[in-house]
Amino acid sequence: MPRTDLPLDELRDFQVASTAPDDFDEFWAETLAESGERRVTPQLVAHPRRLHTVEVFDLAYAGFAGHPVKAWLVLPRERTGQLPCVVEFPGYGGGRGNPLDFLLYASAGYAHLVMDLRGQGSGGRTGETQDPVASPHPHFPGFMTNGVLNPREYYYRRVITDAVHAVDAARRLSVVDPQRVAVMGGSQGGGLAVAVGALVPDVAGVISDCPFLAHMRRGAEIATEGPYLELARYCQVHRNRIDDVFTTLAYVDALNFAPRATVPAAFSAGYMDPVTPPSTCYAVYNAYAGPKEMKLWEFNGHEGGEAMQHERRLDFLAKVLD
Amino acid sequence: MPRTDLPLDELRDFQVASTAPDDFDEFWAETLAESGERRVTPQLVAHPRRLHTVEVFDLAYAGFAGHPVKAWLVLPRERTGQLPCVVEFPGYGGGRGNPLDFLLYASAGYAHLVMDLRGQGSGGRTGETQDPVASPHPHFPGFMTNGVLNPREYYYRRVITDAVHAVDAARRLSVVDPQRVAVMGGSQGGGLAVAVGALVPDVAGVISDCPFLAHMRRGAEIATEGPYLELARYCQVHRNRIDDVFTTLAYVDALNFAPRATVPAAFSAGYMDPVTPPSTCYAVYNAYAGPKEMKLWEFNGHEGGEAMQHERRLDFLAKVLD
Amino acid sequence: MPRTDLPLDELRDFQVASTAPDDFDEFWAETLAESGERRVTPQLVAHPRRLHTVEVFDLAYAGFAGHPVKAWLVLPRERTGQLPCVVEFPGYGGGRGNPLDFLLYASAGYAHLVMDLRGQGSGGRTGETQDPVASPHPHFPGFMTNGVLNPREYYYRRVITDAVHAVDAARRLSVVDPQRVAVMGGSQGGGLAVAVGALVPDVAGVISDCPFLAHMRRGAEIATEGPYLELARYCQVHRNRIDDVFTTLAYVDALNFAPRATVPAAFSAGYMDPVTPPSTCYAVYNAYAGPKEMKLWEFNGHEGGEAMQHERRLDFLAKVLD
Amino acid sequence: MPRTDLPLDELRDFQVASTAPDDFDEFWAETLAESGERRVTPQLVAHPRRLHTVEVFDLAYAGFAGHPVKAWLVLPRERTGQLPCVVEFPGYGGGRGNPLDFLLYASAGYAHLVMDLRGQGSGGRTGETQDPVASPHPHFPGFMTNGVLNPREYYYRRVITDAVHAVDAARRLSVVDPQRVAVMGGSQGGGLAVAVGALVPDVAGVISDCPFLAHMRRGAEIATEGPYLELARYCQVHRNRIDDVFTTLAYVDALNFAPRATVPAAFSAGYMDPVTPPSTCYAVYNAYAGPKEMKLWEFNGHEGGEAMQHERRLDFLAKVLD
Amino acid sequence: MPRTDLPLDELRDFQVASTAPDDFDEFWAETLAESGERRVTPQLVAHPRRLHTVEVFDLAYAGFAGHPVKAWLVLPRERTGQLPCVVEFPGYGGGRGNPLDFLLYASAGYAHLVMDLRGQGSGGRTGETQDPVASPHPHFPGFMTNGVLNPREYYYRRVITDAVHAVDAARRLSVVDPQRVAVMGGSQGGGLAVAVGALVPDVAGVISDCPFLAHMRRGAEIATEGPYLELARYCQVHRNRIDDVFTTLAYVDALNFAPRATVPAAFSAGYMDPVTPPSTCYAVYNAYAGPKEMKLWEFNGHEGGEAMQHERRLDFLAKVLD
Amino acid sequence: MPRTDLPLDELRDFQVASTAPDDFDEFWAETLAESGERRVTPQLVAHPRRLHTVEVFDLAYAGFAGHPVKAWLVLPRERTGQLPCVVEFPGYGGGRGNPLDFLLYASAGYAHLVMDLRGQGSGGRTGETQDPVASPHPHFPGFMTNGVLNPREYYYRRVITDAVHAVDAARRLSVVDPQRVAVMGGSQGGGLAVAVGALVPDVAGVISDCPFLAHMRRGAEIATEGPYLELARYCQVHRNRIDDVFTTLAYVDALNFAPRATVPAAFSAGYMDPVTPPSTCYAVYNAYAGPKEMKLWEFNGHEGGEAMQHERRLDFLAKVLD
Repeated sequence: MPRTDLPLDELRDFQVASTAPDDFDEFWAETLAESGERRVTPQLVAHPRRLHTVEVFDLAYAGFAGHPVKAWLVLPRERTGQLPCVVEFPGYGGGRGNPLDFLLYASAGYAHLVMDLRGQGSGGRTGETQDPVASPHPHFPGFMTNGVLNPREYYYRRVITDAVHAVDAARRLSVVDPQRVAVMGGSQGGGLAVAVGALVPDVAGVISDCPFLAHMRRGAEIATEGPYLELARYCQVHRNRIDDVFTTLAYVDALNFAPRATVPAAFSAGYMDPVTPPSTCYAVYNAYAGPKEMKLWEFNGHEGGEAMQHERRLDFLAKVLD
Repeated sequence: MPRTDLPLDELRDFQVASTAPDDFDEFWAETLAESGERRVTPQLVAHPRRLHTVEVFDLAYAGFAGHPVKAWLVLPRERTGQLPCVVEFPGYGGGRGNPLDFLLYASAGYAHLVMDLRGQGSGGRTGETQDPVASPHPHFPGFMTNGVLNPREYYYRRVITDAVHAVDAARRLSVVDPQRVAVMGGSQGGGLAVAVGALVPDVAGVISDCPFLAHMRRGAEIATEGPYLELARYCQVHRNRIDDVFTTLAYVDALNFAPRATVPAAFSAGYMDPVTPPSTCYAVYNAYAGPKEMKLWEFNGHEGGEAMQHERRLDFLAKVLD
Repeated sequence: MPRTDLPLDELRDFQVASTAPDDFDEFWAETLAESGERRVTPQLVAHPRRLHTVEVFDLAYAGFAGHPVKAWLVLPRERTGQLPCVVEFPGYGGGRGNPLDFLLYASAGYAHLVMDLRGQGSGGRTGETQDPVASPHPHFPGFMTNGVLNPREYYYRRVITDAVHAVDAARRLSVVDPQRVAVMGGSQGGGLAVAVGALVPDVAGVISDCPFLAHMRRGAEIATEGPYLELARYCQVHRNRIDDVFTTLAYVDALNFAPRATVPAAFSAGYMDPVTPPSTCYAVYNAYAGPKEMKLWEFNGHEGGEAMQHERRLDFLAKVLD
Repeated sequence: MPRTDLPLDELRDFQVASTAPDDFDEFWAETLAESGERRVTPQLVAHPRRLHTVEVFDLAYAGFAGHPVKAWLVLPRERTGQLPCVVEFPGYGGGRGNPLDFLLYASAGYAHLVMDLRGQGSGGRTGETQDPVASPHPHFPGFMTNGVLNPREYYYRRVITDAVHAVDAARRLSVVDPQRVAVMGGSQGGGLAVAVGALVPDVAGVISDCPFLAHMRRGAEIATEGPYLELARYCQVHRNRIDDVFTTLAYVDALNFAPRATVPAAFSAGYMDPVTPPSTCYAVYNAYAGPKEMKLWEFNGHEGGEAMQHERRLDFLAKVLD
Repeated sequence: MPRTDLPLDELRDFQVASTAPDDFDEFWAETLAESGERRVTPQLVAHPRRLHTVEVFDLAYAGFAGHPVKAWLVLPRERTGQLPCVVEFPGYGGGRGNPLDFLLYASAGYAHLVMDLRGQGSGGRTGETQDPVASPHPHFPGFMTNGVLNPREYYYRRVITDAVHAVDAARRLSVVDPQRVAVMGGSQGGGLAVAVGALVPDVAGVISDCPFLAHMRRGAEIATEGPYLELARYCQVHRNRIDDVFTTLAYVDALNFAPRATVPAAFSAGYMDPVTPPSTCYAVYNAYAGPKEMKLWEFNGHEGGEAMQHERRLDFLAKVLD
Repeated sequence: MPRTDLPLDELRDFQVASTAPDDFDEFWAETLAESGERRVTPQLVAHPRRLHTVEVFDLAYAGFAGHPVKAWLVLPRERTGQLPCVVEFPGYGGGRGNPLDFLLYASAGYAHLVMDLRGQGSGGRTGETQDPVASPHPHFPGFMTNGVLNPREYYYRRVITDAVHAVDAARRLSVVDPQRVAVMGGSQGGGLAVAVGALVPDVAGVISDCPFLAHMRRGAEIATEGPYLELARYCQVHRNRIDDVFTTLAYVDALNFAPRATVPAAFSAGYMDPVTPPSTCYAVYNAYAGPKEMKLWEFNGHEGGEAMQHERRLDFLAKVLD
């Protein structure tokens, strides 16, 4: 597991020109406007488990185009007043999984909403949310190239909208203080957190660990493991559609959300990460327009800081939520 | 690339009990009845290429539920009367690809219809046919577990129906002699050929090389490469749905079509095949109810006989079509 | 990730003759007697973390020969009376790690003692407990062959004693109900749990998931990944000490503890486990003398049931502890 | 399959100094003069196959030193006048294979001569042409180091002469228009095509896809797969003969033929090619002295453009042959 | 590196029917008679090295068809009378290498003749002996399929003859006691030693460690590494010549020499050997007709016993030579 | 096995700033002073083997803190006067092994002392020397991180002291000429040789092949195989101790010994070495303060020059010892 990307001093200065198309803001304004009308206050259904100190609720809210999206809400059993809330987006391949895996943030006193990820959830943590939109064309197995030939049909247009709505769903809950909602995730979840940080400018903070969906062209060219390879494999076969692919990806790339985000953000990256190589993470970090911090784990791969990163997350949340 | 499955003498005797559910025949009768009403004569659109001796036509016919399915029709340019026809189904991951890759059977004097495979076509040969049905639940990347929790929603119910309709589409073409249509394929295409051989009892013959979709439970347990691993990976995550998975697969497994097929069939297998291990091929071959032959390529993997197998195919087609 | 061990029906019947030496019981009686004199009531040191619903304490108790062994004690913050307790032993390579990773069992209302593992803790979860005994001879990197040429000098003699003392340490805590202590672990932890189940006959129950240290000769011959390979590699170099190695291992093999254990036990195994192949797990399960259950995860490797296994553990603990 | 060679902008400018020895031209003039006297008009032997639209002939012509070299000649069955001809050289390891694999160019109206490759033909497509010259010294398995210590004894001196003679053989056929003969190949065939383009200055054009035998020193240092590794392995063992090896290779390296070639040429390369890394292809392309074009397949490895490259080949042939 | 072949008790009983053709003895009698006429007393050329205690001589003797074969002769510098001699044959890929690597047996007081291996010597130890016979047909890179379609043209017919002549060359040296010559080798050298033990019935003993060229059909089917894979790869391509291949191999297989050998022999095998799986070694051992011993290295692969095996060799040589 | 480090011209100029801490010289002066008092003349115990030309003695001398360290002494049986001596340090993982493997230097007329390596000797050559100091904290399996959090507790402080004492032990032997002692080793042995060359300024020469323990930070970041990965793996887990790790390593890094060494030295490196990448070797070579030479094996990995390097070693020893 050696270093395979740029050396540290070059990472720190790694700047990439924006690839945002001219209608980037309009595209997202329209997308959110269309789906936004469908939003309603979600219902909480108690989800009994053998747990004493926390409570789990099964949640379904209206995501992109009103499609139902599942989530877990985990709460400390003892609570008073409205709670600050952290909304978490899963890593690639996984869904909301089993609530037993999500005890930390409620144990720390937060309302914790774990979004399910449409279609995903058979390659790690389980998921239960259908993506009811069939790809308009054959795509490489996985999600990266589902609808990739047209920005309006692209899978991640739907997912990012789901993520924006997840924040809205959290805020509509009586148990949550709507002024104190942060977004968080690693890998795919980290890319989504940056997008939401730009699209929902009044979230309290963004945590983005080893972000995926971040300078995707470079990712597709240099990553040696993980889902960026789906892009490479698709372009390997559909040799004549490469430009179309990257035109679409520019609408969802965290590289283009970063300069539009102004809320405090905490980033991390792994110096030996073969899945989201550190230069792709630094490209987004360096473009990020809000207050920001970066932690480079010098001998870690895509796993990043693990439990130590959880501690950093709790510190950051204490700053922006408490 | 060593031998990893049973030794040859055990392969030859490898018998497996049928796993067909009681309503297997009813299931397929209903399925075909529902979709069959949508069938119409397809239009031929000339597809000009720099070719002198053969002609290529782009075809779209009505597949499952009337969904449009693409195909190539390749014909010898010089022809008189109706031609015998061979209908080919692609291997897993690929679509109908580029017609330049399908010159052999037209050069040999046959009408050659190459079916596109809905949704597939980004992992090898290109495809252009959409699968307009979204999976009702998260599935593992690929096609093997799309809808796998319910036989009526399962992806291969649609694909097998497409394959049955491909034969019908060929027969509706004025250039084709409807009495002389054979079906053919390797791997996924070989599994589909067996299914069509059972469901369309008046095809002239079946060629099934290294069939996939054949004793799928065993495939999921012992294959070390290829798409059977999608089943294993799905069951690894959805640990509590394993029985549901294999209940559904029993409706599409060539193992259960084989005893229902009576037309002549030519099989082949690779003794060192890690994708469709030879015991899974022999299980189907031994269950096949029609006249049959098997060629075991003793030192080949999933590539099987390649050009030598094409020669065997031409010999078999000459017997059943000429 | 195919099946590489015996098929299921043979697993179920897989019986192995005991390899216990004649002085096995005497060896352990003496070992525990020697170290037992050093035991004292451990001190709880509060370990503040940003946690509201649970409390963490840093614990050091006297292990083998009185050596200090660290542990976490995680407790629900709200509690009344003495709690039932579950003592957990780590998997190979890891130590007690970060308490943020151990919230589940306290959240479920139990006192949860997570033993650190002497010397381990740099190959997964971190550890802080020194093994102050230097190996009397060069050993293969890792722990499996540390002192392996002599049962009294062997590393796992010390570790098993630590594990026995961990139960004692838990029982000495005023917050714990000494009649309701269960032991639990996966892999190495699962092997240790069986040993403790035999050596401390009044524990309330044993949970042993994908146990390691279980039919170690077979493990060394057929495992393709994981620490059994340390044994194989040592024997590859020290070709003339193979008999000595396995003579020593017989004193710590769960295979020989199993017939001496009478408390209720819940086992699990992965049908495609390359680290602790299922036959090695079934060998121990089939030899276990107490009430027992086995769950085979049919398409899982060494990860076993993950969150679903946690649910099964909670169910079992409810039966034996509540 | 990530990018492992220089980034695109550096590739485009990648210039390498010629390594041609002073007697390079003299070496080849003498070589061709010696063998050229043995050339005679080859005989066509019909090779019946179940093909209607094309005809196959088995050909043997006099190659280097008059050694018999086999070839297939594939012709459209319907033809009038002399045909333009394309002479194809195989990729490394393979021979002329089975004529069923070579239908495209005859189907497009060309005479297609597929040269067998002496000695090769057991590692992919079959071959039938013996190399009757034993290596004068032990060489690494394969062909790259056969006779490599002396330019006059080197294997590729014989092969390049065979390739030059293949053009001559084609031109002697009454069915071929000798003014309209192009040469073509991928990988090894692409390197040979450049050599023939320089040595036979009146061929009509050169197609060189992912050329091998091209800047071989760099290939031996950076390729991670494929036959360049034979060079690296030989030099690993014969540590004291490295200079001799590369002195010999300079006589056959396409890098040194390229500045001597003036006919139109179409090149292609794969940006992620581990076998003939793109810098080695660009080194030759940039040195090529005739009219030229380059197509970089940005997400392809050594497979390059496959069917889409065949279309590009047909377009290029139409320009230079029709 | 797990066990992948039969378990130990089955190995011990592993009996295989002879595959020797009817004319096996006649074939070798003729072969040796033809080449035997060319034998002459070899000349010793001093080969100075910075060595004090031993002397090295460069030797060339007449091998198959009188072809010159190189060898090292290493002698203790202090010596009196004629020395017992051990003739060693190299492992696959290597030649006689550097004499600095062959000091042991001369240091132990023996004359040590290390045969070079025609054509080999670029894939491990260097070699200098040419094989002047070109393969009559394309063969897979390496030596296993060179001439394999005809027993009289097969490469190993020449090599075995060279090995027989090496014993004769040793005996013609004045420094050697012709009554006390043993043959020895590992892997390929071990297979050759068995062949020579059968063809030269008055050698004093045979040492055959992890023999290669031993039950070659099984080797080609189950070996996962090493030169048996050349056979598998050749048969993968030349699918229609498989019977011819194994007909030829029967003439050189140690399985067929073993029942014809009567001199004392010491065998060894590695229980986890992926190159010459132990069943192939036991097949030969069990068929061997002379006094014999077998040492199974239970946790070793193809490296076998290394220095400990050298000690066993010295013990065996002391028994048969001193 | 391609080149993965800097190109040759950059290697030659690769200069790295010293990382030596201010108290580096003091640290070693104290260390050697403390242990030096324990040194005594070692006893030679004859170690009979079936060897005629050389004699083997088993040696134990007082190493770090007086700990007994084993060694072989191999001598030419015929000898007059005091012999020049070469002291050899093993590569990583191995011990002094079997004396049969160490015949070369005694056969060349030298006294050859092969030091055993405390704790090592189960991962290649066997060892018998215990390291009686237990690591003060959990370390990653192997030796690289044993005690790595504190320079005084670090494993290699003990090993380097053992190596210094090995020279002293050799000099105390009556058979050795104390003015003519050189040190030698490959990999770990090469790093130790540089350290001894600096700490024992009157040794006659240093041979350092593919040195390990040389610019260890870079090694930990770019090596893809071998023991530098232990450092990377430790830092991966102990993310908060990285600075402590490299602070300690600076006390044992050959990079910091090299500028303190003034005796003649012969270095070598492998251009394609993944274990000790050539830049790490050149960093030390370029920093070395004495007369020096470097041989780069251009197509070799960590094996370097093998027998050809032995010849170079003999040439160098002849220069500095004879």
